[in-house]
Amino acid sequence: MNDRITRLRESLEEPLLVTNPKNVLYLVGFQSSNTVLLVDDERVQLFTDFRYLEAAQAVEGVEVVPTKRAIVADLAGRLSGRVGVEAATLPYAQVETLRGGGIEVVPRVGVVERLRAVKDERELDAIRLACRITDRVYERLSEVRFIGRTERDVSWDVTRLVHEEGGDGLAFETIVGAGPTGSRPHARAGDREIGRKELVVIDAGCTVDGYASDYTRTFSTGPVDEDAREAYAVVLAAQETALGAIRAGLPASEADAAARRVVEESRFAGTFGHGLGHGLGLDVHEDPRMSTETTDVLAVGNVVTVEPGIYVEGRFGVRIEDDVVVTADGSDNLTGFTKDLLDVS
Amino acid sequence: MNDRITRLRESLEEPLLVTNPKNVLYLVGFQSSNTVLLVDDERVQLFTDFRYLEAAQAVEGVEVVPTKRAIVADLAGRLSGRVGVEAATLPYAQVETLRGGGIEVVPRVGVVERLRAVKDERELDAIRLACRITDRVYERLSEVRFIGRTERDVSWDVTRLVHEEGGDGLAFETIVGAGPTGSRPHARAGDREIGRKELVVIDAGCTVDGYASDYTRTFSTGPVDEDAREAYAVVLAAQETALGAIRAGLPASEADAAARRVVEESRFAGTFGHGLGHGLGLDVHEDPRMSTETTDVLAVGNVVTVEPGIYVEGRFGVRIEDDVVVTADGSDNLTGFTKDLLDVS
Repeated sequence: MNDRITRLRESLEEPLLVTNPKNVLYLVGFQSSNTVLLVDDERVQLFTDFRYLEAAQAVEGVEVVPTKRAIVADLAGRLSGRVGVEAATLPYAQVETLRGGGIEVVPRVGVVERLRAVKDERELDAIRLACRITDRVYERLSEVRFIGRTERDVSWDVTRLVHEEGGDGLAFETIVGAGPTGSRPHARAGDREIGRKELVVIDAGCTVDGYASDYTRTFSTGPVDEDAREAYAVVLAAQETALGAIRAGLPASEADAAARRVVEESRFAGTFGHGLGHGLGLDVHEDPRMSTETTDVLAVGNVVTVEPGIYVEGRFGVRIEDDVVVTADGSDNLTGFTKDLLDVS
Repeated sequence: MNDRITRLRESLEEPLLVTNPKNVLYLVGFQSSNTVLLVDDERVQLFTDFRYLEAAQAVEGVEVVPTKRAIVADLAGRLSGRVGVEAATLPYAQVETLRGGGIEVVPRVGVVERLRAVKDERELDAIRLACRITDRVYERLSEVRFIGRTERDVSWDVTRLVHEEGGDGLAFETIVGAGPTGSRPHARAGDREIGRKELVVIDAGCTVDGYASDYTRTFSTGPVDEDAREAYAVVLAAQETALGAIRAGLPASEADAAARRVVEESRFAGTFGHGLGHGLGLDVHEDPRMSTETTDVLAVGNVVTVEPGIYVEGRFGVRIEDDVVVTADGSDNLTGFTKDLLDVS
């Protein structure tokens, strides 16, 4: 049986119904939007419907059980006794369905996610490659002229370049925020034409074998005003301060605080409205979380984003984001593209 | 206040917490991965975190309330009394969080989804355009040589053509199943080279203003054997039978049965392992469902896929899928690309 299942079993107090598709993928290497695992001390049952059945037969170390398309409803009639469920993602109605079948449901949170937060070498290789591909995407993107093109066009460049550089696909919808659009941290790329002397925030990532990169650079289209230049310098200083602080054993809230202090002590105090970063892996947002409120503590093998930002409504945004692996005494930075403010006019 | 909120209010027995992002988009036109609405008889409150706050200010007819990133936990401390929740999608743990805050949670299923199942003219225009773009994608794809290229390469062609023809993006990861891969209804496009004399199932869709197309054609790379040709003819006959049966008032299970009978009476009995189709809109799979078990009844303004298939393990698959609008006395077919078995060798 594979190592991940072995580690999972060490933390189980009752059989666990694994319904989160990313957790299924992590545990047995099978990708499907409609597959559920039941893991107990003796076996791993894989439940899926007709559409995925043939592919499921190739999964090692599991017993494949065909079900109706409504898997949980089907299982309500098959299972009994105490069963743990993934309460952070399983819909309320499905828990009620299981209880209606006489199952004693035990809500569990983060059982598989805690394992996923610490990456093994194979996972690190995939993330490392996804980051290297994204390096190349940024290099080639910075050779393209931005002015007069729409945010949407530049977003398509990212899609095309990810493909050309060998990524499996985008990890998420690329954010392209030029000028005032950049002040929305999660702006969708729109039909606005990119103008002269604007900051352009690009947040992009690709996947390799299911693992994501997620990194951000801010470009300029010609010389920007002093506010924008200073904001850029403050964000970069904040990011480098956080990168210098990160190591295993550090409470993630302290990494956040280290970066936040730099912004708060500048004249852009109050403009860094989101957390410092988050874990990265099969999901673009996973454990550990780095924010003011988190209780997570960084551990060797965590992969986290480090992404302070400054957002000035109606004018501009700046964000600089790297992906790093946490080590015993620091971190390895997986992102290689320059953090100088590049002119792409 | 907009018409959709008005219709929603007619079916509310208590304030409804709308947590499904597609339902939020449907009701107030705001797209965000972290926004929750509270709709009662008097007002619509929109809760979101810093990252989406600036964009949220532009939403009409709502009162924007900034929250922490963990919106539901934040709301647990703000709300009181009876509150309906979307139990089919809201995770169990979040319901417990609300209950922990003293809220009397009422699980509701499908309240907004039922409204979404009937499309208005603006929605139909978006789906119609998404289908027309997909028509053009299939036309141009059929001019490309398939043999010797990988499924993944052909999948990229679809991505590129969707962009070139003006789609906002893919509605889902394109399925390209050549030869034996085609017998897996939800095959992921892989590194297998497409060979001669194979059937190639392509299931693709794009989005326009958030609305999806989802349609499938099966091509051949040179003359295929008699089994494959006959399977194609049976699937086409099954599909046309279903298309002839669909009209408002028909139980969706009868549409499924009409197609299924044609396959079951052929020598491919037992190979049509999934339902006939599903509603299509902001989600690629939504109400109504057309399967053997559904209790849904077709209504004027439903948009559904009609997609029978035959899957012969280790050899080939055939699926033909159209998207249609249900009308009082039949249906309008939105998909224009030929259903002849095209040779793309």
